[in-house]
Amino acid sequence: MAKLKPIEFKNDKLILLDQRKLPHEEVYINNCTIADVYKSIKDMIVRGAPCIGFSGIFGIALWIKENDLEPKALREACDYLISARPTAINLAYEIERCFSLLMGGNDKKVAFDKIVNFGYAQIELSQKNNRQMAIFAKNELEKTLGKRPYRILTHCNTGYLACGSLGTALGVIDHLADHNLIETVWVDETRPYLQGSRLTAFELNKLGINHKIIVEGAASYLMSKGLVDAIFVGADRIVSNGDTANKVGTNNLSILANYYKIPFYVVAPKSSFDISLSSGDEIEIELRPENEILEFKGIQIAPNGSTAFNPSFDITRGKTITGIICEDELIRPDYSKNIPRLF
Amino acid sequence: MAKLKPIEFKNDKLILLDQRKLPHEEVYINNCTIADVYKSIKDMIVRGAPCIGFSGIFGIALWIKENDLEPKALREACDYLISARPTAINLAYEIERCFSLLMGGNDKKVAFDKIVNFGYAQIELSQKNNRQMAIFAKNELEKTLGKRPYRILTHCNTGYLACGSLGTALGVIDHLADHNLIETVWVDETRPYLQGSRLTAFELNKLGINHKIIVEGAASYLMSKGLVDAIFVGADRIVSNGDTANKVGTNNLSILANYYKIPFYVVAPKSSFDISLSSGDEIEIELRPENEILEFKGIQIAPNGSTAFNPSFDITRGKTITGIICEDELIRPDYSKNIPRLF
Repeated sequence: MAKLKPIEFKNDKLILLDQRKLPHEEVYINNCTIADVYKSIKDMIVRGAPCIGFSGIFGIALWIKENDLEPKALREACDYLISARPTAINLAYEIERCFSLLMGGNDKKVAFDKIVNFGYAQIELSQKNNRQMAIFAKNELEKTLGKRPYRILTHCNTGYLACGSLGTALGVIDHLADHNLIETVWVDETRPYLQGSRLTAFELNKLGINHKIIVEGAASYLMSKGLVDAIFVGADRIVSNGDTANKVGTNNLSILANYYKIPFYVVAPKSSFDISLSSGDEIEIELRPENEILEFKGIQIAPNGSTAFNPSFDITRGKTITGIICEDELIRPDYSKNIPRLF
Repeated sequence: MAKLKPIEFKNDKLILLDQRKLPHEEVYINNCTIADVYKSIKDMIVRGAPCIGFSGIFGIALWIKENDLEPKALREACDYLISARPTAINLAYEIERCFSLLMGGNDKKVAFDKIVNFGYAQIELSQKNNRQMAIFAKNELEKTLGKRPYRILTHCNTGYLACGSLGTALGVIDHLADHNLIETVWVDETRPYLQGSRLTAFELNKLGINHKIIVEGAASYLMSKGLVDAIFVGADRIVSNGDTANKVGTNNLSILANYYKIPFYVVAPKSSFDISLSSGDEIEIELRPENEILEFKGIQIAPNGSTAFNPSFDITRGKTITGIICEDELIRPDYSKNIPRLF
């Protein structure tokens, strides 16, 4: 997959792979201003909490190029970019770190280089962290299920395309496959944006990992037949009691997994944690446009006059999560105790 | 909706509305032979357990027209048509009744008329039965939730297009709306065939009933927010312990409903019951073609090389069903006792 870079900063431009067009077209979008980056995030040209965060960093770099480093204006630019997508914490997290780095009045050129280098450092760190999470996950499965090829179910896309690195939940699967520990990956197609059938299947294909795409309605069918050994998902925001915002449909899976006593793991770097919140109820859930449900590639599905309701995320409660895997450790309940301890 | 007849027998032809083309095209398919009917059922030109059953009856009529009423040949014709779709019991149920009616050696013309009239009688009876089920459901909700407009979630399509009559679960909703007892209908889009967003939304539009289409992943989001008062679904086969085969995704909903303590009702005529089976594990689940998931209207979604797994139904366990509504009564647990009693 070397040639498909989801995110790259080159010649003062943020170059983003248009993930709406995958897997059938490879189109790259040049982002030259902070407004371009805002639009790319909002329209899901770039997606996946980590890649959104990295795009935010480079968006601030592009802002610096065209503006004086006046604190009030910088604050406004940061808030503007953060507002592109409200649910994932990574965007706010990375932009706030840029804001801190820029306090103290830098020379414009120095500031620009500092932010660009910071962006690249974060992507590099992501690779290292993802690898560590995958090692924790492999150890956990070998210990709890025995060392054998597993049938893993996953939701949405949490791989290279989402993270610019190995990936979170899909990074675990990649690592397991490297050790011949994958029998099948059940890929939730993940409506309405089809991140599963378009992006996760694409990555698994490139990696040569055995997989089958399923509709989300088939989850309990598979679980009831004993065809799922464990479930791995990513996260857009994890709060201090373990409640986790992730792609809509994740919470369905966690409740079904609990019903069928199948282990359910969240895999996310510490940059996805928001310990300023004590419950998932405090997380803003983004409502996205109705046409994501009513149409497919511009072809109308639903009849004229019908409308849709399109929450893009849901909240999985800590109590239905077997373990949360970050770069430091596999965190177990009681999360209210074990998450704040890491920060 | 008077002009949109999903099923009609006229001039020795079974005329079926091609439900794959709805809501944007109204195409009718003439079925002149039993092989035509087999194909129409298998390819889901006609769908919905009741309409499939009625099509089966008219398919036998078409067979009579072209064949001698020799018992062995008739038996083979019946078995052939029953094999078009294995999960719903209605097809086998109606065809077996035709077989019984034809035993005793009829004149060909008499036999043909007998079967055609039997078909029409069944559609008429369906209307009467659906109405009775809707009354039971309305009484139940008024008693348990109080008389007020309800937010009802439904799955797949169980209305006029599925039943050729008022409908089962959607018939309940229609009846409630007639009494100003519907606030909103949450319409599961129902992947992969999109019976919800294409067919149920189409019917609700025509009926002027307020509704919103959702992806199946959003079910627990709505339930967790207290936005669902009750769930009504249809059935393809109900066995003697209450286990119910219905469109894939139904069992997800029943488990989520139990988790959130939301009443979950199955609505189906007695022709959908199969008390010869004692557990849902004995029901054959139809696996349908992968391209239903991998493509949309001929446009490829998934990458080359990816495959899918497409079970068309799942089994909802009796223990997660609040009540099963048939034309005789609202059946409550213990189903193993209360279902066989009705037969």
